[in-house]
Amino acid sequence: MNIRIGIVGYGNLARGVEASVQLQPDMELVGVFSRRQGIETVSGVPTYSMEDIPNFKGKIDVMVLCGGSATDLIEQTPMVTKYFNCIDSFDTHARIPEHFANVDKVAKEAKTATLISCGWDPGMFSLQRVYAEAILPKGKSYTFWGRGVSQGHSDAIRRLEGVVDARQYTVPKEQYLEEIRNGQTPDVDGYKGHLRECYVVAAPDADKAKIENEIKTMENYFVGYETVVNFISQEELDRDHKGIPHGGFVLRSGESTDGTRHVIEYSLKLDSNPEFTGSALVAYARGIYRLAKHGGTGCYTVFDIPPAWISTQSAADLRAHSL
Amino acid sequence: MNIRIGIVGYGNLARGVEASVQLQPDMELVGVFSRRQGIETVSGVPTYSMEDIPNFKGKIDVMVLCGGSATDLIEQTPMVTKYFNCIDSFDTHARIPEHFANVDKVAKEAKTATLISCGWDPGMFSLQRVYAEAILPKGKSYTFWGRGVSQGHSDAIRRLEGVVDARQYTVPKEQYLEEIRNGQTPDVDGYKGHLRECYVVAAPDADKAKIENEIKTMENYFVGYETVVNFISQEELDRDHKGIPHGGFVLRSGESTDGTRHVIEYSLKLDSNPEFTGSALVAYARGIYRLAKHGGTGCYTVFDIPPAWISTQSAADLRAHSL
Repeated sequence: MNIRIGIVGYGNLARGVEASVQLQPDMELVGVFSRRQGIETVSGVPTYSMEDIPNFKGKIDVMVLCGGSATDLIEQTPMVTKYFNCIDSFDTHARIPEHFANVDKVAKEAKTATLISCGWDPGMFSLQRVYAEAILPKGKSYTFWGRGVSQGHSDAIRRLEGVVDARQYTVPKEQYLEEIRNGQTPDVDGYKGHLRECYVVAAPDADKAKIENEIKTMENYFVGYETVVNFISQEELDRDHKGIPHGGFVLRSGESTDGTRHVIEYSLKLDSNPEFTGSALVAYARGIYRLAKHGGTGCYTVFDIPPAWISTQSAADLRAHSL
Repeated sequence: MNIRIGIVGYGNLARGVEASVQLQPDMELVGVFSRRQGIETVSGVPTYSMEDIPNFKGKIDVMVLCGGSATDLIEQTPMVTKYFNCIDSFDTHARIPEHFANVDKVAKEAKTATLISCGWDPGMFSLQRVYAEAILPKGKSYTFWGRGVSQGHSDAIRRLEGVVDARQYTVPKEQYLEEIRNGQTPDVDGYKGHLRECYVVAAPDADKAKIENEIKTMENYFVGYETVVNFISQEELDRDHKGIPHGGFVLRSGESTDGTRHVIEYSLKLDSNPEFTGSALVAYARGIYRLAKHGGTGCYTVFDIPPAWISTQSAADLRAHSL
């Protein structure tokens, strides 16, 4: 029997999940649950209201929660975990312990299993950090993000007076990547390691110097970073900056004996951040489904799932073809 | 209590395991078991004969088997699994199903747990293939090895008449790596994708043209590959080619919707192949130890181990610091 998937929310991430489910031979999409009414889904799968969720008990195996971390998931994941095994992409790092505790409590009472904070970071990048650090305990780890669109930073620029539209790219500085690949362990943090590249459409009468200054001095967003502001036309922005690509690098440079160095590098180059995140959520929907079948209840992360459980292949096929 | 480790065999890989155990805060090395007598270990840990192995029952938690796949592991892993949880680096791909079945039978009878085929390929590369394929089911996977020393190919050259010493490097062809990173899916196999670079010390009176021809026409080793033969002096070989570096790349290029492409890349750049392989074995010794503590018996691979189990960090620490 196929794994029956439900989707909660219907933004970019949800459409990524919807597309990914179509590519999986052992899954079927039962429905999309949304606060908005009258949505047409890309695949034609039916939509329901959030209030219908409890009525699908026994008809859906895993609910994929596609809301935002800040306001949606912190409430929705525990709520839906009352009825279903779930998976979410909760990425507000400082609140992960709190979110984990909330979900774990509900899941243990309801005897469901929910996996939180899946995607690529947190998610695949987290896995790479754990693997690399376990193998090379003596060493230094690095994470770089980009080149990719930061939605939050783009939104922050758009809120400035005189700004019509904007797109912000986070760009890792190649010099540090090269140093690490060559076995060096530079002292570089997120600020030093990234360039913030802004493309801004200004209103015709706007004071561009003022906008540029406001961007560069914006606390929590741009202060501390090297920031480059480019003013372009709306046509240029629509033509050249419509996609939502992203990616990044996880590296660990370590040594096994004095002077014997090893560099582990993992990188992603993604045409679409939400589609790749959705694809990771769907693979791990299979993982949490199997964990639940094995009797697991409570809250989990990617660290708890044996890799074999996210694959469609049997254990014997994995050993024969992928080992 | 520390995880008590034993090592079977005492070649390069065993010394890599020995060094790695020293870096792990939760492990101690109890002894090295070898067919040879009177060995001095690097760390000063005592050595014992192979016949002593059964006497250490209850004193060692995991035995790390460091023999060669072809003749040693195929017999030793089932033998030692009778008494201990074990881990090996069995890498004769075609015989993995047979080796798995042998070990599984012994382990289930003895109620031990043994993990086979650990290291980087098989091992970390295998994991990357499984993760990437589960997330991007529509796509193409690639594995490249090198730049690194192939011991088997170096040995094969050394056996030729007129050859005093030799070192063979496997080198991935950069052009294909670049194509894949740019989202293309070239039709490239192991033969087309690698260059075989040979450094040969010939005897003073040897026929170099004949040696070069014999290398390039050697079945199962060089036929089908682009092969370059360089004749050098013993001094040059000793000076420039004494290390045993290795590494490689696992890539997957796939799409989530038509034309939306993603590239996942994992790479290793290793100063010492046996030291890194040994480091992976030691991290997974922790994994199989925990699996055994959870009641697991039988034969396992890296695919079966939750990533959290190879880490020294608690689940809460992993969520707080690595997720």
